[in-house]
Amino acid sequence: MHRFRSMLYRQLAPEGWNQPGLSPSNLCISLLIIVAAFIAIIETEITVQSLYPPAFIWLEYLFVIIFSAEYLARLYAAGEDPRYAGISGRVRYLFSLWAIIDLIAILPFFLGFLTTSNVFMLRLLRIARLLRLARLGRFSRAWSALAEALSARVYELLLSVGLAALLLLFSSACLYAVEASNQPEAFGSVPRALWWSIATLTTVGYGDVTPITSWGKLFAGITAVAGIGIIAMPTGILAAAFSDAFQKNHSTTNKSDMTSTD
Amino acid sequence: MHRFRSMLYRQLAPEGWNQPGLSPSNLCISLLIIVAAFIAIIETEITVQSLYPPAFIWLEYLFVIIFSAEYLARLYAAGEDPRYAGISGRVRYLFSLWAIIDLIAILPFFLGFLTTSNVFMLRLLRIARLLRLARLGRFSRAWSALAEALSARVYELLLSVGLAALLLLFSSACLYAVEASNQPEAFGSVPRALWWSIATLTTVGYGDVTPITSWGKLFAGITAVAGIGIIAMPTGILAAAFSDAFQKNHSTTNKSDMTSTD
Amino acid sequence: MHRFRSMLYRQLAPEGWNQPGLSPSNLCISLLIIVAAFIAIIETEITVQSLYPPAFIWLEYLFVIIFSAEYLARLYAAGEDPRYAGISGRVRYLFSLWAIIDLIAILPFFLGFLTTSNVFMLRLLRIARLLRLARLGRFSRAWSALAEALSARVYELLLSVGLAALLLLFSSACLYAVEASNQPEAFGSVPRALWWSIATLTTVGYGDVTPITSWGKLFAGITAVAGIGIIAMPTGILAAAFSDAFQKNHSTTNKSDMTSTD
Amino acid sequence: MHRFRSMLYRQLAPEGWNQPGLSPSNLCISLLIIVAAFIAIIETEITVQSLYPPAFIWLEYLFVIIFSAEYLARLYAAGEDPRYAGISGRVRYLFSLWAIIDLIAILPFFLGFLTTSNVFMLRLLRIARLLRLARLGRFSRAWSALAEALSARVYELLLSVGLAALLLLFSSACLYAVEASNQPEAFGSVPRALWWSIATLTTVGYGDVTPITSWGKLFAGITAVAGIGIIAMPTGILAAAFSDAFQKNHSTTNKSDMTSTD
Repeated sequence: MHRFRSMLYRQLAPEGWNQPGLSPSNLCISLLIIVAAFIAIIETEITVQSLYPPAFIWLEYLFVIIFSAEYLARLYAAGEDPRYAGISGRVRYLFSLWAIIDLIAILPFFLGFLTTSNVFMLRLLRIARLLRLARLGRFSRAWSALAEALSARVYELLLSVGLAALLLLFSSACLYAVEASNQPEAFGSVPRALWWSIATLTTVGYGDVTPITSWGKLFAGITAVAGIGIIAMPTGILAAAFSDAFQKNHSTTNKSDMTSTD
Repeated sequence: MHRFRSMLYRQLAPEGWNQPGLSPSNLCISLLIIVAAFIAIIETEITVQSLYPPAFIWLEYLFVIIFSAEYLARLYAAGEDPRYAGISGRVRYLFSLWAIIDLIAILPFFLGFLTTSNVFMLRLLRIARLLRLARLGRFSRAWSALAEALSARVYELLLSVGLAALLLLFSSACLYAVEASNQPEAFGSVPRALWWSIATLTTVGYGDVTPITSWGKLFAGITAVAGIGIIAMPTGILAAAFSDAFQKNHSTTNKSDMTSTD
Repeated sequence: MHRFRSMLYRQLAPEGWNQPGLSPSNLCISLLIIVAAFIAIIETEITVQSLYPPAFIWLEYLFVIIFSAEYLARLYAAGEDPRYAGISGRVRYLFSLWAIIDLIAILPFFLGFLTTSNVFMLRLLRIARLLRLARLGRFSRAWSALAEALSARVYELLLSVGLAALLLLFSSACLYAVEASNQPEAFGSVPRALWWSIATLTTVGYGDVTPITSWGKLFAGITAVAGIGIIAMPTGILAAAFSDAFQKNHSTTNKSDMTSTD
Repeated sequence: MHRFRSMLYRQLAPEGWNQPGLSPSNLCISLLIIVAAFIAIIETEITVQSLYPPAFIWLEYLFVIIFSAEYLARLYAAGEDPRYAGISGRVRYLFSLWAIIDLIAILPFFLGFLTTSNVFMLRLLRIARLLRLARLGRFSRAWSALAEALSARVYELLLSVGLAALLLLFSSACLYAVEASNQPEAFGSVPRALWWSIATLTTVGYGDVTPITSWGKLFAGITAVAGIGIIAMPTGILAAAFSDAFQKNHSTTNKSDMTSTD
């Protein structure tokens, strides 16, 4: 009996698998999650949905059965982990982050309110389960490099976000001041002008609202130019942070080289 | 009496607080500034304003009373600073940069012209007061890293700004030359064409004005491609400058390491 | 006879030419490929096509004759390469990647279905033949530097692509949730909302569909700001990777310098 | 007499001024060039032009007189430079790059065809004269750093330009293939589709033409995502190149430091 649990644990728990990559079971589950998410997405399109509606209901039944079985199997196999052994351990497991996410992915079905768009969001949450599996092998090094780079420069990044927020505020205040009387619908208040301001500073530029007065165009031009700084600053900080994080690995290697050549 | 002033000084002057972070008083004031700015912003929206107009007037009274009290308290506490001691010191304090900004944040109310959009801008200036408080602790290191990176490469950045300005001018001159006869409203003069040119070179691309002739599209395409250079160049310079600024700290640490290992 | 084949081999095979740059024959062929592609492109424009239709047919005859002759010459010259010597070697050559691409560039003409747009795509494939010739001399160093940088950080780049895909999905799900009832045509399903979402996250921002509800604008604003991260992250990773790849060359040079100064 | 010429040379020739910055005469001329360019720009705006038309004619007379006098003074002072001494030297000077640019700035006036837009372009060329003066002092170091970074990675940049051009071609060919029948005006040929393709790949995104078919939107989405690579790649290369160029200066300084500490 315990051999089965141990085998199950090795198959299901990402940290239980001692070979590179994912275990066959987790690979299957990953694929199923992607398929389920894909179906949840195209199901929203009425032209697809109307092709053969029962198919989508049956598929949803199928996914919920599989994911429920997987949930129970994980709960059972969690006993292998010393932290989650015994009854009290299992209860602790039930309230661990990943177990809750796993539950959210199947719960809505059992609560029976399958028609709202909230359900769609919860179904999409299944994709979040991929994150647990993505923290593996080669990707785990990439994760930690990204995380290290971001955390090392978090204050510089927050600072540039703060400057961007100030810029956003002042540019929308300026546009509100000069355009409000001409375009009350689009620039009649600062929160309204913010919509234009975000679209401009991020260089998205929908063009659904644009200034028409000369002063408005002048401020808009300054905002657009400042938008380059808004992009250039965090990009530059990230580039330098990644460069740092990558070279740290090199330098540790080089140090050992130096020591060995001595 | 002086103990109270000393206590007040430690609470209000950012440089008087000898623990990391902000003092409790400054934290409260920071939050109040953010709340006041937020209310000033949503107050401009007529649908919010019309909910219960007196509320916004009362809130403005409240903020002005608090900020006035804070202003007087800062003036009193400034005596702890040797630079601002005595009567003449206080007068010097009144004309220091931050005291003037503090005054601007409350003055408009007392001058009684509370209806124009100028007042809104002055109210927004209160946010600038946050900058003083932001220069602290962990952010101060980030500030200096950003400032160092920018000042070390100021000529390279100015040069790329200059090249961008030239590009802007020539591209709007080209579009004016080929599109003026077809779209006199949008490209009838170089200053008018500048509006299109800025939107294109910064890759904002509103699309409210676009060239329609073949030559116009050709020049516009070249301008759009050049726009990538306009973004890539300062980003690259900033990235290299940040990389430099970050590594300088590392190298100084490494040097001391090397010395110690000797 | 073999001397002619050897001469042909040196002229046609990029690896057979022992001087820097391209051989005169390959230079001519490169120019012809570019001219043929240019003509294939402008031929699609009806106003150009209608000027003198027979010209384009004659030109196509000319290109097919030249490229067919080149194809046969390459097949003949391939015998110089030990891998492709003899009859069986020539058959192996016929199924090598570049020989197939060369064949695709001339085959459609002989199959006689010259009117569809598929033919146009195949004609455009001729440009792919330039890639073989571009892997030469100075560009080969640039190629390997780019390839090295990309392959060294492939997991970090894939990770940022994955995060971008998740962001894309969640932002279109959010917009679908709040805008579907107001704009069923543009946001009536997640796949439809994806179109808007891609245009926003890549900061392209066509503006053909934009949110109109307040919640939609709020989520759109967050998406637009996240779009900066989508651009900044891979740019930063690439910048750091290029920096690494470029410095590796320097450091190897420096090491030999150090050794020599010892 | 020669003392006057020597003084004139020091004032006018940028390389003749042995103090940092520009000589007083060149500073005045730089300002005049900027003013003349500014007037040439606003003069194109009919609402400004019509205020008092003679003013602009008089100003143009004034600028031509000053720049002509400057041209003759430069010609006279060029004798101080050994390369341009004597009559034959002066003739050589007349055909030097900068002398021709100086001439172009004044010539159109004397040729009497003052009404066309060509004249406007030539007047704008006066700005190019600023480039000569910008190569000075502190900016000269920034210039050489930028030039060094660009020239060191010219093949990598050309390669990414080449890849971008291929992408541009294939994306417009794809859109032409799927959208031509629906939108013949915008996608009826590859050159027409190029306009959309450039706007998308550079993330400008005017939105004047957008795909309407599902396949068109799919290819457009892929193009938009590829557009991020088009921006990220040259930015990354430039960032690494600038980093290299900046550190080369540091490393030379560090080397001498190391030597001195030995």
